Amino acid sequence: MSNALQQFLKKHAELADLHDAAAVLNWDLEVHAPPKAAEQRGRQLATLSGLAHDAFVSDAMGELLGQLKEDGNLDAAQQGNVRVVAEDYAKARKLDRDFVERQSQVRTRAYGAWMAAREANDFGQYVDALEAMVALKREEADRLGYEEHPYDALMDTYEPGARTSVLRPLFEDVREQLVDFVAAIAAKPSPEGGFLEGHFPHQKQWDFGLKVLAAMGYDFDAGRQDLSTHPFTISMGPRDTRVTTRVDESNFRDMLWSCIHEGGHALYDQGLPRDHYGLPAGQAASLGIHESQSRLWENNVGRSLPFWKHWYPQLQAEFPDAFGDVALDDFYRAINTVQPSLIRTEADELTYHFHVAIRFEIEVGLIEGSLKVKDLREIWNDRYKSYLGVDVPDDKRGVLQDIHWSHGSIGYFATYSLGSFYAVQLFNAASDALPNLQADIESGQYSGLLEWMQQNVHAHGRLLTSEEICEKATGSRLDFSHFMAYAKTKYGSIYGL
Amino acid sequence: MSNALQQFLKKHAELADLHDAAAVLNWDLEVHAPPKAAEQRGRQLATLSGLAHDAFVSDAMGELLGQLKEDGNLDAAQQGNVRVVAEDYAKARKLDRDFVERQSQVRTRAYGAWMAAREANDFGQYVDALEAMVALKREEADRLGYEEHPYDALMDTYEPGARTSVLRPLFEDVREQLVDFVAAIAAKPSPEGGFLEGHFPHQKQWDFGLKVLAAMGYDFDAGRQDLSTHPFTISMGPRDTRVTTRVDESNFRDMLWSCIHEGGHALYDQGLPRDHYGLPAGQAASLGIHESQSRLWENNVGRSLPFWKHWYPQLQAEFPDAFGDVALDDFYRAINTVQPSLIRTEADELTYHFHVAIRFEIEVGLIEGSLKVKDLREIWNDRYKSYLGVDVPDDKRGVLQDIHWSHGSIGYFATYSLGSFYAVQLFNAASDALPNLQADIESGQYSGLLEWMQQNVHAHGRLLTSEEICEKATGSRLDFSHFMAYAKTKYGSIYGL
Repeated sequence: MSNALQQFLKKHAELADLHDAAAVLNWDLEVHAPPKAAEQRGRQLATLSGLAHDAFVSDAMGELLGQLKEDGNLDAAQQGNVRVVAEDYAKARKLDRDFVERQSQVRTRAYGAWMAAREANDFGQYVDALEAMVALKREEADRLGYEEHPYDALMDTYEPGARTSVLRPLFEDVREQLVDFVAAIAAKPSPEGGFLEGHFPHQKQWDFGLKVLAAMGYDFDAGRQDLSTHPFTISMGPRDTRVTTRVDESNFRDMLWSCIHEGGHALYDQGLPRDHYGLPAGQAASLGIHESQSRLWENNVGRSLPFWKHWYPQLQAEFPDAFGDVALDDFYRAINTVQPSLIRTEADELTYHFHVAIRFEIEVGLIEGSLKVKDLREIWNDRYKSYLGVDVPDDKRGVLQDIHWSHGSIGYFATYSLGSFYAVQLFNAASDALPNLQADIESGQYSGLLEWMQQNVHAHGRLLTSEEICEKATGSRLDFSHFMAYAKTKYGSIYGL
Repeated sequence: MSNALQQFLKKHAELADLHDAAAVLNWDLEVHAPPKAAEQRGRQLATLSGLAHDAFVSDAMGELLGQLKEDGNLDAAQQGNVRVVAEDYAKARKLDRDFVERQSQVRTRAYGAWMAAREANDFGQYVDALEAMVALKREEADRLGYEEHPYDALMDTYEPGARTSVLRPLFEDVREQLVDFVAAIAAKPSPEGGFLEGHFPHQKQWDFGLKVLAAMGYDFDAGRQDLSTHPFTISMGPRDTRVTTRVDESNFRDMLWSCIHEGGHALYDQGLPRDHYGLPAGQAASLGIHESQSRLWENNVGRSLPFWKHWYPQLQAEFPDAFGDVALDDFYRAINTVQPSLIRTEADELTYHFHVAIRFEIEVGLIEGSLKVKDLREIWNDRYKSYLGVDVPDDKRGVLQDIHWSHGSIGYFATYSLGSFYAVQLFNAASDALPNLQADIESGQYSGLLEWMQQNVHAHGRLLTSEEICEKATGSRLDFSHFMAYAKTKYGSIYGL
């Protein structure tokens, strides 16, 4: 091993340690830290990320990368690591200290304005700060550079290689094909679901969630589940991937599908190549691919009839008052109700994508300059009416509902939908490759599915883009017809269409 | 504020952030981390402490200290900070990278050998590694330098300013005065204590402990209590001091006094001057003073009759099967039984100090070269027989019982006894200053005592030595006669002597 490679690995191991330390601090802040600890915790995190940033963008790192690009003895994975780190490095160097400091100020202002505007239920109070954020993101796109569209530069942070020219027609398909189908569903009577409301004791829910997680293949010796206000998954080492969930005693669905969703994220992190921990070959490919793993488990597995053939008797045994007299088929239909609504995070498996499409269209328009921040309330409310058929009663339940823009996360929302669409396409490919998959799921066995995902998705780390992973694993790039066919089969059957 | 002072404060704030991050990682490791996380966690901690060490011993820090020593505009606290940091800096520079690396190797070897020797119950397997450790500590003492005795240089790390010439006569007093008194106690019948054994449900113990902690004045908005194998207190920010305890359902005493003991440590950390967090003026004075705060609450308050006048009815109400028919006086006598024993951590308030005296004498002998590692088993067993009157049946319950030497913690044990002795002297001074103290304790009110400790002990941070704090707070340096008088009054009454 060359001296340069040794140093490169050592520096990245230290960077990983700093990121992991920050992950522990963040996890603790969400899960355990006492209220008065929060202020100092912010400073501790800033110190760690400052140290990591300085170490990464250092001239020394640039010199190492230069030497390693000329190193003829690297194996394929190390070549890939060097290539992707060099890309990250070039990007990071384009955002100089002055920009990073201004970014931090604009974020602080935008987050404060968003909180105040929500409190006042008045988008008007957010406009100036959001305009400053959009201006900053446009500058960021210019600094980073792009081939086709400035929005591509922003998406690249979350979904390397994503192009507006690909996603725009994708979300047009969503609108054109899904709007009609959802309208047809809406014309049918909703499945009866009153039995989903009831009293579901905390401990019983918790234990049930843990049983499902364990069955999925989550390694509790390399992770744990805790409670938090918003469920999340976080890794703080190659063998320490934790999940959180929340428990509402009147709604067991919230806990259960959070638990399965986060479990899917965690199985991905637990499945990444450990030997390359802290380097691209050991990192997640993109937010879209990460979300594909959570959505696959949440929806394609966890809301499927085969899944519940196995688990429903156990659920009935735990909650006999609620489900003792409810047939599996009625339960299955009730947990798959489609119902247009106002809030993205509460949306069902189909209408969810209208929420994302609206945000995608708005973001592209803001970044290319065809839409103005001051018009967003009107644009938002118009599109909710036209795509989802709902009237937005106020800004809190409308254009102010998401935190993302106040953090500067523009280019992020699309990855939620990409996740669902990749999930269907990957699940189909796994089904083709695993003839017993349905029977396995009916008997609570998921190891075949998990191994297929490990080999065809997790194993690539971040050395391939999402689209390359999809193509290698399924034979084609992302193709919305897979999702549409899945939707029509599943919901056509549920709603008798 | 001068530029040098600004930089000095900024660098120390970053150092504090790194130490706090390490504290979060350590706390998590003990309390929550899944088993497979441990290996990487060790590396993460090494990276953080390496970064902190490099930043501290840097030439830049030396230059800042040089400038600040000449700065005529510093207030008294900042002058103190500069003085003490300069001492730390000079010490740290004396232990160069080569020494630190060898230290790490010797520790790893000694810890491994200690574990193996314990497993085999054979001190012989530990001798070579412990000899290497003693040689290293002798080298460390020489590098650090000392005025009177090489052992002083080692104690200084834990108890700044401590001298062998002061502690040797102190432990001679322990032996001469306490051995006879304990022998007189041993000649009396032991108080009846069978009722202390029973079944004490986990949750009831936990809740009782929390109630006591809250009454002591522990701020739960700036801390929390969790479970761990070995109880400890740890601070990870100026407003984040956490404690842990353990619960044994057959022995409520273990939980309760751990809880009070750690609570005492935590009240000290929560009482340190927050404005100087991360600097000597905001740090604990020494291990001995830290232990004085935990022992004061554990013993002088928590094992006293006034304390139980308040809490015993509540304890009876929680555990009526065990205590419903037991009079307060019998309970009080039972929790204050004196009984020579083999294991330091299980020893009572009096015989505990024989355990420490033996370790102190052995450490001084090893460091000055008058004792040899290969003779330790024999020396240990002889002294246990002569001071405590017990026969040591094997090495596990003898010379192999403590982890400290394997970590290189030589010079540490004495601080446990110093803590108890300071505690009595401080408690006496507080009693003189607070005429209502006994009545307050009888009614479960501790705010006067806590405020007195904050003003007379906590407020000094690390700008005074233990002895200086003791002298300022009590009118004299540590004087064993306070402890002896306390022991004679309390145990004379309990045992009718």
